[in-house]
Amino acid sequence: MPNPMGSRQGDEGAAGSGTQGPDVLGDAVSPEAARRALHRVADMVADRLESPDRYPVLPRLEPGAVRSSLSPAPPAVGETLDTILDDYARLVEPGSTQWNHPGFMAYFAISASAPGILAETLAATLNVNAMLWRTGPAATEMEELVCDWLRQMLQLPPEFRGHINDTASIGSFLALAAARHRADPTIRELGLAARADLQPMTVYAGAEAHSSIDKAVVALGLGLVNLRRVPTDDTFRMDVAALAATIQADRGRGERPVAVVATAGTTSTTSVDPLRATAEVCAREGLWLHVDAAYAGSAAICPEYRALLDGLELADSVVLNPHKWLFTPLDCSVLLVRDPGALRAAFSVVPEYLRTTSGEATNLMDYGIQLGRRFRALKLWMVIRAFGVEGLRARIRTHCELARDFAARVRAEPGFEVCAPVPFSTVCFRATPAVEAEEQDRVNERILERVNASGEVFLSHTRLRGRHVLRLAIGNLWTGPEHVARAWELVREVAGEARASPP
Amino acid sequence: MPNPMGSRQGDEGAAGSGTQGPDVLGDAVSPEAARRALHRVADMVADRLESPDRYPVLPRLEPGAVRSSLSPAPPAVGETLDTILDDYARLVEPGSTQWNHPGFMAYFAISASAPGILAETLAATLNVNAMLWRTGPAATEMEELVCDWLRQMLQLPPEFRGHINDTASIGSFLALAAARHRADPTIRELGLAARADLQPMTVYAGAEAHSSIDKAVVALGLGLVNLRRVPTDDTFRMDVAALAATIQADRGRGERPVAVVATAGTTSTTSVDPLRATAEVCAREGLWLHVDAAYAGSAAICPEYRALLDGLELADSVVLNPHKWLFTPLDCSVLLVRDPGALRAAFSVVPEYLRTTSGEATNLMDYGIQLGRRFRALKLWMVIRAFGVEGLRARIRTHCELARDFAARVRAEPGFEVCAPVPFSTVCFRATPAVEAEEQDRVNERILERVNASGEVFLSHTRLRGRHVLRLAIGNLWTGPEHVARAWELVREVAGEARASPP
Repeated sequence: MPNPMGSRQGDEGAAGSGTQGPDVLGDAVSPEAARRALHRVADMVADRLESPDRYPVLPRLEPGAVRSSLSPAPPAVGETLDTILDDYARLVEPGSTQWNHPGFMAYFAISASAPGILAETLAATLNVNAMLWRTGPAATEMEELVCDWLRQMLQLPPEFRGHINDTASIGSFLALAAARHRADPTIRELGLAARADLQPMTVYAGAEAHSSIDKAVVALGLGLVNLRRVPTDDTFRMDVAALAATIQADRGRGERPVAVVATAGTTSTTSVDPLRATAEVCAREGLWLHVDAAYAGSAAICPEYRALLDGLELADSVVLNPHKWLFTPLDCSVLLVRDPGALRAAFSVVPEYLRTTSGEATNLMDYGIQLGRRFRALKLWMVIRAFGVEGLRARIRTHCELARDFAARVRAEPGFEVCAPVPFSTVCFRATPAVEAEEQDRVNERILERVNASGEVFLSHTRLRGRHVLRLAIGNLWTGPEHVARAWELVREVAGEARASPP
Repeated sequence: MPNPMGSRQGDEGAAGSGTQGPDVLGDAVSPEAARRALHRVADMVADRLESPDRYPVLPRLEPGAVRSSLSPAPPAVGETLDTILDDYARLVEPGSTQWNHPGFMAYFAISASAPGILAETLAATLNVNAMLWRTGPAATEMEELVCDWLRQMLQLPPEFRGHINDTASIGSFLALAAARHRADPTIRELGLAARADLQPMTVYAGAEAHSSIDKAVVALGLGLVNLRRVPTDDTFRMDVAALAATIQADRGRGERPVAVVATAGTTSTTSVDPLRATAEVCAREGLWLHVDAAYAGSAAICPEYRALLDGLELADSVVLNPHKWLFTPLDCSVLLVRDPGALRAAFSVVPEYLRTTSGEATNLMDYGIQLGRRFRALKLWMVIRAFGVEGLRARIRTHCELARDFAARVRAEPGFEVCAPVPFSTVCFRATPAVEAEEQDRVNERILERVNASGEVFLSHTRLRGRHVLRLAIGNLWTGPEHVARAWELVREVAGEARASPP
């Protein structure tokens, strides 16, 4: 095709010549240089997929080290793609925490699989903004389709419709916004301060619910004091009798309950709140039930794990993160809603410059706060097709088995304990040396520090019943029995030193 | 490295064999198949960058056509990457609106440049979640660095700090949340309904401000009636005298002004509100000034266009979208804030499982609502390095020249008018046949429909002073004089027919 700016065809020599001025534009958009660089990157990616453990899982760096190695000012003249890729390989990749490393067992372990990476490359090239159907027919329809695939895989009724957000933080925020709107549709126009009755709206979540629920309640103007943290039972599940009692007490004080957030796979222990019993309370009380299944929603594609989420089908909204445990690169969080009209009612604002005449077509911008919408469905579609549902299930089952094996080793070892049930692929455990509780905590902190300093394994921590607890989470595609065995070996090795060391 | 699941090494034949069961996992994670597919995609991308006009800019499709060509249920068994890529090439790419097409002149035209695509591929592979410094040292520090590069390019004072969000919708939402928090820090804990004084908080924006401001005000619980749309002058700029008068009137009624949103590059006409005068009002009244520079912030890297944004340096927060006009693939929106502590105060919630001991390092999760944070800085860093500041400026200047040339053609043509000043790269224009106003609107609607049916050019529309107006926006890297000439030729061609056609 005709090229309006001859310099775009310039080869790498142009940038290397050092001549300044608007006609010297580097090789950024020379098609030949782009093709060469794309193939170089193809090999860089393939190499990394072949050896995801090339670098220590946690880089040994002080804050500021990476930045100080990069130019503090932007370059005036373009540089070659090869120079930039050299710097990436030299500074950026080794300066990164290796989330795709088989020894990554902190937080929730995730995976960038090949089909997901291919899809992200193609989505970046198409560069579709799927705000309206007409601005991205394939992106819009595939987003609706692939969310329906997940709905089927989760055995949810057909009325659930989904869309994809960047994060579960946004998904839960949108769900609570819809709940707020359903409870009082005047808020959209008049705001919360104008409500004549002045009853504060209250939201309920288990003590172990995720911090994103706090952030959503803050953002929505409901106030953190109106987020009731319901106590959990001895397996860290929301106590539904306490939930019901709290709701009653709040009503008695003239407050206005609007929503309950139940968690399927809490961040600390992956406990699952009793969804069916919670749904019954919500039905009785007329409350919106949002289920944060960001983690365990993936496991629920296996019938035996879906059974642990019994009652999920009674929710008003469910959020789950394929970028967590369905081997899809960040970011891909699916929000499934029983009544998508509630989201539209809460959020739709259509200015003239976005009006279309596409009739019944879905305009996904109407279902949330973000107008710009990347083609995130492509990666989920490619991942599900490449693995197949059985392939996804097989990996999830393997990860859960690996976690159970690890827990069995911990249980069999004197001086250690498993601190919570292991329903999925995450184990909470700790050393229990014969010292007082606070010194026990320090021993476990030192174990964590030393294991993570190894560069072989990355674990994280949490606090349960007031005590410092170690967390091992399996979710990376490349993690196998030998990595889990090595993690346990490291923990045992350093535990002796950690007991002996001064605080 | 050792591979825990032998089947992962399986070649494509395994998936093709049709054998079901968890041991048949397709080629999704076979390193050899991944490498082949990565090179195939490298060529697919390079081909598209060489011929971005391969497909009609707007696909000729009815709603539902793409979805009905795809499997309604997820496959049980994995498929080969080649099968999936074939479907992509056959169904998805041609079923997409071609945002990277040189004839894309609707909304705001954008570009996926080669360095941006390379970076997205690498970011998907690293799969870093930059929520904490320790979970992404390079991603965190590069995000801070590249936002500082933009700060320098925009001639903003050094106290501004930036972070990257997916969209300006989120950036403006966060800025207004910070403004709400600064105006009344009790809201975070107590919510809006509990405010003792009950004065509604009010926010101000020009009549031409973006719909994302409405959505932010709804989400924050402030209420749409408390978003004051200030009238604009005859060049669609916010009337600052009217702003000051409205604020005074609201105070007189006992309301509580908290923030003003000024726009630098409104969506309809790209007008720039008088920033310095607005900033003076904000300083006098103690209001947060947020500048929505999503579009024109990119132009402001050229000194001559920065002059049109005089006073930008007085803002409390500025949002601009490198994914709009700095040749960076979606999504990349930068929020620069004078007092980042205000964002942190509004949003920081740190549960035990996210506590770290990294000392003074920045944890970017503290500055917004989203915990999960993709490594978006990488693409902006690669784009700025590949183009250089002068290379970026040269393209922006060229786009503005092309727009001025188009406007000159319109002005020179009897029966047409330019409907607004053309400060940057967007032209609002219309046919003015000698018929009554509503029929004029219908003529322009028909012109738009026919031009867009051509598949060569995609224009959009807006409404100015009650009239239907056509919009031509230049921002794609591949758009040259010949595309703009063709757009004008098409408009003139169809205008005759459009005048003659029955409504």
